[in-house]
Amino acid sequence: MKITAIKDEVVSIASPMRNAVIDFSSMTISVVKVETDQVRDGSPVVGYGFTSNGRYAQSGILRERIIPRLMNADSADLATADGENVDPFACWDVMMTNEKPGGHGERSVAVGAIDMALWDIVAKMEDKPLYRLLGERYRDGEVDETVRVYAAGGYYYPEDSQSKLQDEMRGYLDMGFAETKMKVGGASLEEDIARIEAALEIVGEGRRLAVDVNARFDVPTAIRFAEAIAPYELRWYEEPVGVLDFQGHADVRAASTTPLATGENLFSTEDSLNLVRHAGLNPETDFLQMDPVLSYGLVEYLRTLEVLREHGWSARRCVPHGGHQFGLQLAAGLGLMGNEAYPGVFEPFGRFAPGASLDDGRVTLTDDPGIGYEAVPEIYGILVTAF
Amino acid sequence: MKITAIKDEVVSIASPMRNAVIDFSSMTISVVKVETDQVRDGSPVVGYGFTSNGRYAQSGILRERIIPRLMNADSADLATADGENVDPFACWDVMMTNEKPGGHGERSVAVGAIDMALWDIVAKMEDKPLYRLLGERYRDGEVDETVRVYAAGGYYYPEDSQSKLQDEMRGYLDMGFAETKMKVGGASLEEDIARIEAALEIVGEGRRLAVDVNARFDVPTAIRFAEAIAPYELRWYEEPVGVLDFQGHADVRAASTTPLATGENLFSTEDSLNLVRHAGLNPETDFLQMDPVLSYGLVEYLRTLEVLREHGWSARRCVPHGGHQFGLQLAAGLGLMGNEAYPGVFEPFGRFAPGASLDDGRVTLTDDPGIGYEAVPEIYGILVTAF
Repeated sequence: MKITAIKDEVVSIASPMRNAVIDFSSMTISVVKVETDQVRDGSPVVGYGFTSNGRYAQSGILRERIIPRLMNADSADLATADGENVDPFACWDVMMTNEKPGGHGERSVAVGAIDMALWDIVAKMEDKPLYRLLGERYRDGEVDETVRVYAAGGYYYPEDSQSKLQDEMRGYLDMGFAETKMKVGGASLEEDIARIEAALEIVGEGRRLAVDVNARFDVPTAIRFAEAIAPYELRWYEEPVGVLDFQGHADVRAASTTPLATGENLFSTEDSLNLVRHAGLNPETDFLQMDPVLSYGLVEYLRTLEVLREHGWSARRCVPHGGHQFGLQLAAGLGLMGNEAYPGVFEPFGRFAPGASLDDGRVTLTDDPGIGYEAVPEIYGILVTAF
Repeated sequence: MKITAIKDEVVSIASPMRNAVIDFSSMTISVVKVETDQVRDGSPVVGYGFTSNGRYAQSGILRERIIPRLMNADSADLATADGENVDPFACWDVMMTNEKPGGHGERSVAVGAIDMALWDIVAKMEDKPLYRLLGERYRDGEVDETVRVYAAGGYYYPEDSQSKLQDEMRGYLDMGFAETKMKVGGASLEEDIARIEAALEIVGEGRRLAVDVNARFDVPTAIRFAEAIAPYELRWYEEPVGVLDFQGHADVRAASTTPLATGENLFSTEDSLNLVRHAGLNPETDFLQMDPVLSYGLVEYLRTLEVLREHGWSARRCVPHGGHQFGLQLAAGLGLMGNEAYPGVFEPFGRFAPGASLDDGRVTLTDDPGIGYEAVPEIYGILVTAF
C-alpha cells in the first residue's frame, strides 16, 4: 500500500449570505485527492477530502508542509503494520512532524482535509461505508442507521426580512427537516426577537429552533439576550460570546435557561479540554459542536471524544459543525447526537447522497464505500474537474 | 499616503539545532515588504517585516487573504485621519475582515509580519526609531535606553554534550550576555540535571540560567522536574507542560519554587487572558513570553498588555519570544522586562544592529529610523535579494 500522489486545489464556495461577524462572498476551500497504488474493481483507490467551511483554503500549509512530509515519508511509516491499508494515525504523526505545540488554526484545517481523504481510503480498501468501519472499530459494530440533522440557516435578508425568513424555514420543513437554526446578534434585540417569533410561527415549538450568535456578543449583552429568549424555550443558544472566552461562557451559562451550544471554533483536543474544564457547561443539557475537519481530522476528534468522556460528556452531546458528509459518517458511526446541515448553502459540498432520504429530521446513509463523494454527482463533478 | 505594493518571499532559517519537540532543519520564514508612495531623503518609504521564527512561512494566507484585502482597500481606510501616515490599527481591521473568531495560529503569524512592516513605515515617516515612537505614544515619551536580553540556547549536542554546552555558555558570556537559557526535557532527568550543573559551572548563579522544556512534559513529569531543579534557584522554568494546558500550569505552579515562564505559543489576547485567568501564575514572580509577531503583531500585543494590566500583570513581567529587533524595539519603547536573543541561530534575523553594544546583559539601541533592518547588512542583504 503506497500513497503515490497528493493533490490539492482551491474551490470557491462563495455565498451571498452573512452571519453576525463575517460574509461568505470570498469563501474558499481546499479540496484534496490522495492517490494510492491500489486497485479495487478495476479502479485505483483514491481518497477525497476538503476543508469543511468558514476557514478558507489552505494551499500554503498543504503544499509547503503537510503534503511534502507525507510524500517524503517511507511508505511503511504511513501504512498499517501488515501494509494492507493506510494508517491515519501514523500519517497524522508524520503530518505534524516538526510542528510546535499550540497555535491551533489553519494548520488544523489543512491536516483535517488530508485526514478526511485518508479515512475515505481506509474504508474503500475495506469496501464499506466509513460509518460502518467506524462502528466496527469504535462501537463493537453498532451504528446509527439514521442521523438526526438540523437545517442551519435563518440568515439576515436585506429586505422583507421576516417573511423571507419564514419562507426559508418553511422550505426546510418541506425538505424533511424537523429542527432548524437561525442567525441572531446581527440586529437589535427587538428585531431579533421579532425574527425569532416569526420563525417560531413556522417551525412550531421552541425545541425545534436554535439561535446562533456567531460569538458576536460581549458578556453583558449575551446575558440580556439569554433573558430575552428564555420564554421561548429554544433548543439552544449558540456561541453567545467569544469562542475562547471560557469564563464568559460560564457567566452566560449561569444566566441562561436555554441550553448553550459551542465549539465549532475550537480546533484541538486541548482547546476542547479547556472548554469543559473552564466554561461551566452542563454535560446533561448543553451541546458541543467541534468540527472534525477544522480540528485536525478524525484522528484528533477521537482524542477529543475521549477527553470529553473523561469529563462526563457523552458523544450524544456532540453535533458537529460543517454540514458535510464526513460529519454525517462520524455521527452514524461514532454515535454522535447528530450533524449540522446547510441546505442550499456551501453548495454542493453540503449535499446528502442522492440515495439518502430525509424524514422527520433524520437522514439515512447509503452503502457507497468510503465517504461516498463519488455518489453525489454535483460534488464528484467538482472533484473530477479539479483534479 | 498610499500603500503601492506588498510583497512576500520565503526565506530559509534552517538550523541544525533541535529542542525537546521539533528540529529546525526545514524552518522557513516569510519576509514581507510594504511599499508606499512616500519619499524621505530621496528614497521611497518602505517597511519590512518577517514572521519571527518557529512557525514557518505563511505564503498561502498572505497571498490569498491578508495582502489582497489591504491592496483592495481604499487608501483612506488604511491611513491616519489626516492621511499623513499608515494606521496599523485600521490596517489590522482590514486584514481581519471576514475572518471568523478563534483559530489563532498561522493567520496570526501572517498578520504579525505585515504589522511589523507597517510599524516600520509609521516610524520611518516620523523619521525616528520605532522604540522612540512607541515611548511617545504609550509612555509619555519615556523609553528604556538599554534593554535586558538573555541568550537562548543550551541545545543538545549529539556528542560531547556537556563540554559543548559549556563552550556555548562561555561564548554567550564573552559576547556580553549575563543571563542564558538552556533546553531541557529532551533527555533523562539525570542527564538534564548534569547538563544544568555543567552550565552553572560557567554562568555562575542560578538566577543567570533559565531552563526551557518546550512543552514536552506531562504534568507529573513536570512536577518531578520542578522538585529536582528547586535547589538551583534558577531564573525560570519555561513551558513545562502543554502550552494550552492552563490547569496543568496551575498544578506545576503549585509545586515549583522556581518561577514559571510561558506564553510564546499563545497567539492572541484571548489566549493570554485565559492564561492569566486559569493558569494560577503569579504576577509578582512569573514571566510572560508572548511573541508580538506570532500573535497578530503589535496592534494585538497592545491589547494583550492592557488585558494583562487589568489582571495585575506589569509590562515588566513580559519578555517576548523571538529574538528579533522588533521585540527589542517594543521592549525599549513599551518598558517590557527585556527580550530574548538567539546568538548565532536563525541567522541573520536575530542580529543586533552593528552600532549596538551589549554589556552586562543589556543592549543599546541605535537611532536608525523604523526598526532599523537597513542598518544590519546581513539582514538587509537578504531583504534586498528577496525583493
